[in-house]
Amino acid sequence: MAQQFVTQIADINTDFAQWYTDVVIKTQLVDYGPVKGTMVIRPYGYAIWENIQRELDARLKATGHQNAYFPMLIPMSLLNKEAEHVEGFAPEVAVVDIAGGERLAEPVVVRPTSETIICSMYSKWINSYRDLPLKLNQWANVVRWEKTTRPFLRTSEFLWQEGHTVHATREESVEETLSMLRLYRDFAKDVLAMPTFIGQKSEKEKFAGAEETYGMEAMMLDGKSLQAGTTHHFGQKFSRAYDIQFLDKDSTHKYVWQSSWGVSTRLIGGLIMAHGDQRGLVLPPKVAPVQVVVIPVAAHKQGVSDVAEQVARSLRECGLRVELDTRDQSPGWKFNEWEMKGVPLRVEIGPRDIENGVATCSRRDTLQKFTLPLDDLARSATQLMDAIQQDMYAKSLAFRDAHVKYAHNMDELGQILDDKCFAKVVWDRDPACEAAFKERFQATVRVMLDEAPFQDSCTCCGHKGDNLTVAIVARAY
Amino acid sequence: MAQQFVTQIADINTDFAQWYTDVVIKTQLVDYGPVKGTMVIRPYGYAIWENIQRELDARLKATGHQNAYFPMLIPMSLLNKEAEHVEGFAPEVAVVDIAGGERLAEPVVVRPTSETIICSMYSKWINSYRDLPLKLNQWANVVRWEKTTRPFLRTSEFLWQEGHTVHATREESVEETLSMLRLYRDFAKDVLAMPTFIGQKSEKEKFAGAEETYGMEAMMLDGKSLQAGTTHHFGQKFSRAYDIQFLDKDSTHKYVWQSSWGVSTRLIGGLIMAHGDQRGLVLPPKVAPVQVVVIPVAAHKQGVSDVAEQVARSLRECGLRVELDTRDQSPGWKFNEWEMKGVPLRVEIGPRDIENGVATCSRRDTLQKFTLPLDDLARSATQLMDAIQQDMYAKSLAFRDAHVKYAHNMDELGQILDDKCFAKVVWDRDPACEAAFKERFQATVRVMLDEAPFQDSCTCCGHKGDNLTVAIVARAY
Repeated sequence: MAQQFVTQIADINTDFAQWYTDVVIKTQLVDYGPVKGTMVIRPYGYAIWENIQRELDARLKATGHQNAYFPMLIPMSLLNKEAEHVEGFAPEVAVVDIAGGERLAEPVVVRPTSETIICSMYSKWINSYRDLPLKLNQWANVVRWEKTTRPFLRTSEFLWQEGHTVHATREESVEETLSMLRLYRDFAKDVLAMPTFIGQKSEKEKFAGAEETYGMEAMMLDGKSLQAGTTHHFGQKFSRAYDIQFLDKDSTHKYVWQSSWGVSTRLIGGLIMAHGDQRGLVLPPKVAPVQVVVIPVAAHKQGVSDVAEQVARSLRECGLRVELDTRDQSPGWKFNEWEMKGVPLRVEIGPRDIENGVATCSRRDTLQKFTLPLDDLARSATQLMDAIQQDMYAKSLAFRDAHVKYAHNMDELGQILDDKCFAKVVWDRDPACEAAFKERFQATVRVMLDEAPFQDSCTCCGHKGDNLTVAIVARAY
Repeated sequence: MAQQFVTQIADINTDFAQWYTDVVIKTQLVDYGPVKGTMVIRPYGYAIWENIQRELDARLKATGHQNAYFPMLIPMSLLNKEAEHVEGFAPEVAVVDIAGGERLAEPVVVRPTSETIICSMYSKWINSYRDLPLKLNQWANVVRWEKTTRPFLRTSEFLWQEGHTVHATREESVEETLSMLRLYRDFAKDVLAMPTFIGQKSEKEKFAGAEETYGMEAMMLDGKSLQAGTTHHFGQKFSRAYDIQFLDKDSTHKYVWQSSWGVSTRLIGGLIMAHGDQRGLVLPPKVAPVQVVVIPVAAHKQGVSDVAEQVARSLRECGLRVELDTRDQSPGWKFNEWEMKGVPLRVEIGPRDIENGVATCSRRDTLQKFTLPLDDLARSATQLMDAIQQDMYAKSLAFRDAHVKYAHNMDELGQILDDKCFAKVVWDRDPACEAAFKERFQATVRVMLDEAPFQDSCTCCGHKGDNLTVAIVARAY
C-alpha cells in the first residue's frame, strides 16, 4: 500500500523540483489559478497560513505593533515619488486603467508593496514627537508580475504581512529593523522548526529604496537557500520623498526615520522544502492543520468506533487539532494519505489495542511506531507535540550545520556548491566578486554574517583589507 | 470640558450624515485613501474588524466551513460565462490590462466577488458525491467601482468574507442558504448587539445570477435601513454555466446546487449608526478594541499610579482588553476622548477612591456613574461586559420596535417613512408597486417577512389574491 502513494511523488533525491510540485498539488495545499502565475490556496494550505498568522500576529502585537489596512490601489504618481523604489517595482506592477466602465484620468497600480501609500498617509498623520513611534502592520495580498512562477515560492499574487514603522531617531529605527529580523528568526525557529541565517544583504540585493536590507535565509533539503523574510531600514529616504516631518521636543521640524519588514506565503514553501521526505509533507506541530489523526482499525468490531471517538474528543479537549478519519477506506490507505499530508502523530485504535488498553501510535517525523496507554493518551500526545517540534528543529539544524562549509578560494566554493551546500566565504564587498559568484556558479551572496573573517583575504579576488566580511554564498530560490 | 468634543461632532438629530462622517474620522476609525472612494482602515477601526472576524470565523468553522484563498485576478472570459452575473457586475469592475510592462493578451478584472473563479475551480475539484458538500469561505478584499462612496458603507475597495458552498441536492443548498442567514442574524444580535429583520429579497433586489437572495436589514438611528448581509441560493445557474457536475450514488452525472453569502466591513458602519450618540461611538463589549479604560486621577499623588497599574493588570488577567491611559493630559480630556471612542467602561483611580477601596466607574452606554470595590473589580468588570452587551441589544431592539409601523395604504406609508420609521406593508409582489415605493417615497422593499398579511389587499395597489406578502419598506443606505 505504501508504494501506491510513493510512486505518485517524484524522487526527492533525483528530482527535487518535481517532488515539490507533486507534494503541493497532491496534498491539496494549492492549485493553479486561471491567470498565469496565480495560485489557489486550498483549505489544507490555508490552514497552515492561518496558524502562521496567528502565531506571528501575537508576536507582533506583543512587541507593540498594531494592525491596519491600506487601500490596494495606488495612484501611479504616488509610486513615482521615490526614484529607486519606482525603478525597482515599476517593471512588475499590474496597472488598472479602466474602472466603472471608464478610462481613469490617472492609472492606478495594484500594490506590489505598500511603502508609497502608507508614507502618503503618514505624512498626513504625523505632526509631533508625540505621534512617534508609529508601528503599523498589515496582512494583505500583493501583486508582482513575475516571469517564472512556482506555488508559494514566487506567484503573481501572494499573501503577506508588511510592517511599516516610523521613529524620531536613526538609532530607534535601526534597532526596530534589527529586532524585527531577530523576531523573524525566533519565529522561524520556534514555530516553523526552521533554522536560519540572518544578516545584512549586499548592496545589489537591497530592497528598492532602502538604505540597508537584512535577510533571513533558510537551507532547503536540496542545499539551496530560500529568502524567508526581509527587514529594511529606509533612513530618511521615504520621509524626504513623501514629506513626513514632525515637530520635535526642541521645537524644530525633522524628517522621520523608517523601517519596513515582511514575510509571506513563501514561508509555506520553506516549510515543505525544509522538512519533507519521500512520503510527502512533514509538518511541525505548531503549524500543522491536523496535529493528531485518529484512525479506527476494524471499525466494525465491538467498541472500536466508540473508543476512537472518545480518544478524539479527549485529545480535542486538550486543545489539540484532531481529525477522526471514519471514511470508508482501508486503514492502510488512510495511513498513507495522512503521512503524505504530514500529520505529526497518527493514533490507531483497533480491537487488540483496546484489549491492551493502549493505542498504536506513529510519529511522522521519525516514522517510529510505539504504543501509549489509552487512559493517559491526551497528556502524552500533548507532550509529544512539544517533543516533535523540538526534534524537528534539532534535525534541521544538524542537517544545515552539516551542509555549511568554508570556501577559502573559488575552486573550493564551486565544489561546495556542487555538493549542495552553503559556502561561508570571506568577501571584500566588491560587486565584481559578487558578479563572479553569479557568473561562475549561479550563486549569490545571501547574507553577510556577524562573524570574524576566517582568513585574511577575499575568497574570490584575494584582496586584503579592513572591509572583509564573512558571507553565505549559495544557490537560491 | 465635555463641550469641547461635542462641538467637534455635528448634531446627531439634525445632520446625521455629517455626524457619521465626523465620528468615523475623529475617532480615527478610517481616513480617505488617495484613490477615489477608497478608505484606509486605521488601527482603531481595524481592531473592530479583527474582533468581528474572530467571532464570525469561529461560528463559520463550528458549522463545518473551511477557509481558503482564491486569486484576486479573474480572466474577463471567466466573468462572462454566467450572463446575469456579468451583466450585474461588469459596469463596476476594475480592469487590469497592463502587467509586467506588457499589454495582457486577455484583460483580467479585479474580483468584485468570487463566484466565477471559485466555480471554475469547483468544476475541476468536484467529481463524485463523496466530494460533497463542499463548504468554503474566504476573507478577502474586493473592488467595485462606485459612484458615491462613504467610509465603511460603500467604498471602491472593501474587506469581507464570502462563503461558497456546493451541495448534491436543492434541499441541502436551500437549507444552507437559510441557515447562514440565521447565523448572520444571531451573530448581529449576539456580537454586534444589533437586531435585524431577515427575509427574502424581491426579484429586483436579487444578486446577479441568484435564484433567490435573502437579506439581513438593520435599522439605523435615523430610521434608515442598512443591508448588513446577504445569502444567495444559485440553484444550478452557476453549475450549468461553469459545468460543475458530480457522479451521484445512482451512477448518473448531475449538476450541483450552490449558495453564496457574505458580510463586509460595512458592518462597522452599521455598528456606528445603530449605537452611537452625540458624544460619539458606543461600542458593544464584544467588538470594542478597548473594553475598559483605566484613568489615573491626580497621578502624581502617592499610590495612584501603582494602583492604576495593578487594576489594569488584574483586568487584563481576566481576559479583558484594557488601556491604561497615562498620557500627559487632564483626566477630563481623557474622559471625553474615550467616550468619543465608545469604550464600554471607564475606571477612574484617584486618591479618594484608593482611600475608600473603590474605583469610580462610568458606563458608556448609559453614562451612569458608580463605584466598585477595588478588591473585586476584575470580576465585576467582566460581569458588566455581559450586562452592557445585553442592555445595548435590548435598547436597540426597543428602539427598532418603536419605529416599525403598519402601512395600510400609501398615505400612511409616506407618513411612516417621513417619521423616520420602517413600514410593514402588505405587497402583492408586483414590481409596479415596488417602483411606486421608490418613485413616491425614495423607499425600497428591504425584505419580505415570514408573517401572515395584516390585511387582505396590497398596501400600494389594493389588489387581493394568494400572492400577498408582508414586507419591510424603508429608505436605505
